[in-house]
Amino acid sequence: MAERYARRIPEPTVVRLPLYQRVLLELSADGIPTVSSAELANAAGVNAAKVRKDLSHLGTYGTPGTGYDVNYLLGQVRHELGLDQEWEVVIVGIGNLGHALAHSQRFSTQNFRTVALFDVDPAKIGKLVDEMPVRHISELEEVITDASRAIGVIACPASAAQDVCNRLVGAGIGAILNFSPAILTVALPVLLRQVDFSVELQALAFYIVHPEATVGSEAESQPPP
Amino acid sequence: MAERYARRIPEPTVVRLPLYQRVLLELSADGIPTVSSAELANAAGVNAAKVRKDLSHLGTYGTPGTGYDVNYLLGQVRHELGLDQEWEVVIVGIGNLGHALAHSQRFSTQNFRTVALFDVDPAKIGKLVDEMPVRHISELEEVITDASRAIGVIACPASAAQDVCNRLVGAGIGAILNFSPAILTVALPVLLRQVDFSVELQALAFYIVHPEATVGSEAESQPPP
Repeated sequence: MAERYARRIPEPTVVRLPLYQRVLLELSADGIPTVSSAELANAAGVNAAKVRKDLSHLGTYGTPGTGYDVNYLLGQVRHELGLDQEWEVVIVGIGNLGHALAHSQRFSTQNFRTVALFDVDPAKIGKLVDEMPVRHISELEEVITDASRAIGVIACPASAAQDVCNRLVGAGIGAILNFSPAILTVALPVLLRQVDFSVELQALAFYIVHPEATVGSEAESQPPP
Repeated sequence: MAERYARRIPEPTVVRLPLYQRVLLELSADGIPTVSSAELANAAGVNAAKVRKDLSHLGTYGTPGTGYDVNYLLGQVRHELGLDQEWEVVIVGIGNLGHALAHSQRFSTQNFRTVALFDVDPAKIGKLVDEMPVRHISELEEVITDASRAIGVIACPASAAQDVCNRLVGAGIGAILNFSPAILTVALPVLLRQVDFSVELQALAFYIVHPEATVGSEAESQPPP
């Protein structure tokens, strides 16, 4: 059903769905049955028109005067996000960032379970991080039971990132999140997302020097008073 | 000049400018005088039409048959990104993530210089991280010399994040990058950007379960063969 709409869901909407999901989870836990687009917007720090537009991409329109059914919408958003199944996360590169990711509550909830940590440094192999042993990357294939439900996270130095990426793809992993500053190349249909901290700093600097450009972006991150 | 166009630069373009900047820096260092949109696209992992559209937002159009003047375009992109001045970064919360950010080369280059590290944990205060002492957050005001050029990075636990955010704003910092999972509230004109690792995982899961939706997104991250 929802698949019919998926093709047209724009990327900015895709990355806002997790935000709505988080707010809806809280409302559902509090036993709140319905939510207006204005309330959802306020809690998510997005403007209400954008919420309505985003949700319309899922084929969902709130009832005037009542809003959205919290549990129905939550189920729908979670289904769209693939959160009605469990994903196995493997982290490669257990330096400070790999540690931070392994420790992160958010990284190991929401149906994403960190199942293995890898490195190549003999001094790290065998050490426990959050009760999980750091393994040598040569064990990758043995550890992954179902590569179709696995996500590979690259947290190693840039110089090793393409090699690690190739190993992950070689082990059948089709979805990779790259935290290293290297620009990686993968063949279709492997999915690759890049997280680059410096991009965020530069985007902030852009908006500092262009205050006239910030109206739209601030509406994104700041709920109305 | 460029300011005239700033109002219309869409957010997805803003976050691609750092990518172009990185490629252009490399080309410039290699002494390459011109670059076509196709070459720039290939190196940045974006499609060529998007490169031309993005750069047209800066009022820049390549010369047919020649492409873009590398150094001129580099200067223009850097000016737009506010990289013709230096920004001072303060990091609050020196756990694994704070360490990773403090160590990150990318975080301390490109005109962003990490000038101070803060925490509240007595066991951490005074310790050196990359030759920089961890200070108690109460020293925030003393340390920041020019708040208008400062960016505050929140890497503390979610429970402390709003308090830290308020302190940063109280010290006159108008631009904040939040790595904690807390949704923060700030008053205009403070700029706030949120980095949420779990959003990236969820976006990946979305594209795994919606392979038909990935054409556009893959064109973003994967150069054509």
